[in-house]
Amino acid sequence: MPDMTMPDFADCPLPDALDAMGERWSFLILRASLFGVRHFEEYQSSLGIARNILSNRLARLVAKGILSREVMACDKRRVEYLLTPKGKALAPVMLALRQWGEQWGNRCGAMAPPIVDRRDRQPIRKIAIMSHDGRELDLDDLTVLDDGAS
Amino acid sequence: MPDMTMPDFADCPLPDALDAMGERWSFLILRASLFGVRHFEEYQSSLGIARNILSNRLARLVAKGILSREVMACDKRRVEYLLTPKGKALAPVMLALRQWGEQWGNRCGAMAPPIVDRRDRQPIRKIAIMSHDGRELDLDDLTVLDDGAS
Repeated sequence: MPDMTMPDFADCPLPDALDAMGERWSFLILRASLFGVRHFEEYQSSLGIARNILSNRLARLVAKGILSREVMACDKRRVEYLLTPKGKALAPVMLALRQWGEQWGNRCGAMAPPIVDRRDRQPIRKIAIMSHDGRELDLDDLTVLDDGAS
Repeated sequence: MPDMTMPDFADCPLPDALDAMGERWSFLILRASLFGVRHFEEYQSSLGIARNILSNRLARLVAKGILSREVMACDKRRVEYLLTPKGKALAPVMLALRQWGEQWGNRCGAMAPPIVDRRDRQPIRKIAIMSHDGRELDLDDLTVLDDGAS
């Protein structure tokens, strides 16, 4: 986006999404949640994370409204951590990160099994920037609407 | 994505993208670059970052192949930091982060000027997960293709 009006960077130090998922363990817990993990023991065994750190990070994600902590109806002694709508809305960010890693990263990408549409088992499209009428846009196609023009 | 085959999380500790942009200053430098910032002094004044930290983070982003350091043709004493194709490819991630913050975050989102298509000045679409034939997909529409089925 060359020659666009410069936004006021100082007003927006870090996006909330990065604040929520930029920390290593929070990111890994969030990714596991997107893959269907719900229980403390499942997070612990799939991530190899210490119990105290896991407790702390789950509580943080609950406090941020990304996970909700629910007592299971079938067994009141057990709890589930479920993605809220706010948490589910991070899926495009997570998949865009994954696809970038597959194309440009050095690690893991090539080995990851493809994520497919459950309906026809075809891989999903590359996450892209689209115009209102569905054209794929490059960075150079974008500009910021300045106040004078809006 | 409930009930999908669990990937091996231990094999992929953190995606490269998060490694590259998860750190506060690197993220801010990258965002400024996407908005067209190219020169050391511009980064410094728009981000309010100390010179030594800025030097360090620019060098890191160059080492990671996200920015390239170019001596300007018109003035050999000046350098520009330009996004490489690998760096430009982070735009969907950054915009997905921004849109999530606008919808769900507490800060800055509401104040940010909209990013529009240069051609018709219409705001871009919400970044979404799409099937190969262009249907918008929810998290629940997705599954991982396991080895047996591929």
